Amino acid sequence: MLRITDPEAMRDAIRRLAVRGAPAIGIAAAFGTVLGVRSSPATTEAAFLEHLDNSCQRMASARPTAVNPSWALERLKARAQTLSGRGVPAMKAAVHAEALAILDEDRAICRRLGEIGADLIRDGQTVLTHCNTGALATGEHGTALAAVFEAHSRSKRVSVYATETRPLLQGARLTTWELLQAGIDVTLICDGMAAQVMKEGRVHAVLVGADRIAANGDTANKIGTYGLALLAREHGLPFYVVAPRSTFDLSLASGAEIPIEERPPEEVTCVGGQRIAPHGIKVYAPAFDVTPARYITGIVTERGLITPVTAETVRRTLGEG
Amino acid sequence: MLRITDPEAMRDAIRRLAVRGAPAIGIAAAFGTVLGVRSSPATTEAAFLEHLDNSCQRMASARPTAVNPSWALERLKARAQTLSGRGVPAMKAAVHAEALAILDEDRAICRRLGEIGADLIRDGQTVLTHCNTGALATGEHGTALAAVFEAHSRSKRVSVYATETRPLLQGARLTTWELLQAGIDVTLICDGMAAQVMKEGRVHAVLVGADRIAANGDTANKIGTYGLALLAREHGLPFYVVAPRSTFDLSLASGAEIPIEERPPEEVTCVGGQRIAPHGIKVYAPAFDVTPARYITGIVTERGLITPVTAETVRRTLGEG
Repeated sequence: MLRITDPEAMRDAIRRLAVRGAPAIGIAAAFGTVLGVRSSPATTEAAFLEHLDNSCQRMASARPTAVNPSWALERLKARAQTLSGRGVPAMKAAVHAEALAILDEDRAICRRLGEIGADLIRDGQTVLTHCNTGALATGEHGTALAAVFEAHSRSKRVSVYATETRPLLQGARLTTWELLQAGIDVTLICDGMAAQVMKEGRVHAVLVGADRIAANGDTANKIGTYGLALLAREHGLPFYVVAPRSTFDLSLASGAEIPIEERPPEEVTCVGGQRIAPHGIKVYAPAFDVTPARYITGIVTERGLITPVTAETVRRTLGEG
Repeated sequence: MLRITDPEAMRDAIRRLAVRGAPAIGIAAAFGTVLGVRSSPATTEAAFLEHLDNSCQRMASARPTAVNPSWALERLKARAQTLSGRGVPAMKAAVHAEALAILDEDRAICRRLGEIGADLIRDGQTVLTHCNTGALATGEHGTALAAVFEAHSRSKRVSVYATETRPLLQGARLTTWELLQAGIDVTLICDGMAAQVMKEGRVHAVLVGADRIAANGDTANKIGTYGLALLAREHGLPFYVVAPRSTFDLSLASGAEIPIEERPPEEVTCVGGQRIAPHGIKVYAPAFDVTPARYITGIVTERGLITPVTAETVRRTLGEG
């Protein structure tokens, strides 16, 4: 249990991945900003809005790839601005209320993602998933895992292959734990085993989450996702992304514009504090990759299933633009 | 440094991967058998040959996928049989001499693999490799890495991306070390990063070793190889296997007949003795996979480059059958 009472501690928790998962860090960034501005010394609305803006920029810079923090923080700022003329205390209260609303909505949205996603899983099927997309990555329920939980609660027989997800092993540590807790059949594999698992016919579909989705459906997600999408295509398996509207960044025409975070070499060269490679070794450690829309069978959003995935179907399903 | 003086210790070293790499375990199995029969109490040639046969069976059963041990042990048996009528001491000496010959030949063969393989690497290129295929996997020089060492010694500028190769991290622990020792530029990545590295144009070719190659060129190698071959194909990169004749098993028509070893769950759930997944979690841990010949651009053998890879070109290049 991590109790956080100041914004820098929240930013640090996001940076070092004590909180992770795109929806969860959106919520965390919102509450971190609330912590940052609740005791703001600003006496004028203009000064408060500037303080809020600075706090948001600081919080958003913790991690660059997921768009959910920026989306949540834009909501806080917009909400404060609507209170123009009502005074600083009202703005502070509104910012807090908006953060709570984001959390509440995330819960409802993830439940809806689960409901739509569960329709894609047939009784007796096995899905392969990557990284962690459960309650530990969101306000509640999860994204890709929400579909599995919901299928299970509808009494469908569903099994999961969880990739360990190097370097930080979110699959091995978190996904396995969440599925074991839920009583769902889960098998852990190393990332490099996925192709063989597919070839042996052990899985029927791949379900993953997302950190940022461009207007054309190109999807940034945990490193390794792009490779899984190619392997799924090669083995004739459907490849689904499950993500809320807040993970879409319609300001980006394609995935080429999504900034990809590189993580410190130690996340690769050390496991649980233990060194696994020679000192001085050069490391390349992108934390995310971008899967082109053409490899994605469908994107489950709370507004419906986007399939096939094109700029046109993204726009139409989201009902925007 | 591991000093082994009895055959069961050698078998154990092979089983727990203190010695690993297909050519190296072929050599190790041969010397393990020498240790097993050198003080054989057999007084008749028939009894000695039976003892030798039993020793070979025991040693070959240490690990099922690589064919090099069986190949080496067949040589020991055949050599002993040629001494028929010369007495047990002569047979013992011959078995020992044959093991030494296998080691010597492996060194020469690996040098030749390096020479042929180096021709495939152009000045300034970067290759991606998987697992460990250097001196630590053979008698000397290596297989896929021999090509890199030889290219480097010909003053070609060559760089390497080394996949860490979960679960046992031979890439992170051994390949990086060998390349650092040789002064060759090497970058470590997690297995799940290979697709992104290819997409970014960071590598020009993939070079791997092999544990067993069927008559049609289907190749069993470290788990993860098959996925890399698919990814290489998708990114238009050549995918080469580098392996000695002793890794071919022409008795198998295709890779479907190659036995795939499953390793204990702890190799996945523990890293350096540290637990990375919940207790009680189910694990699937195939140690190898099979890459169909159609994904392999070429196989470098000491008898030449097999390309394209078909039953016909395998037979012709090996000059057999």
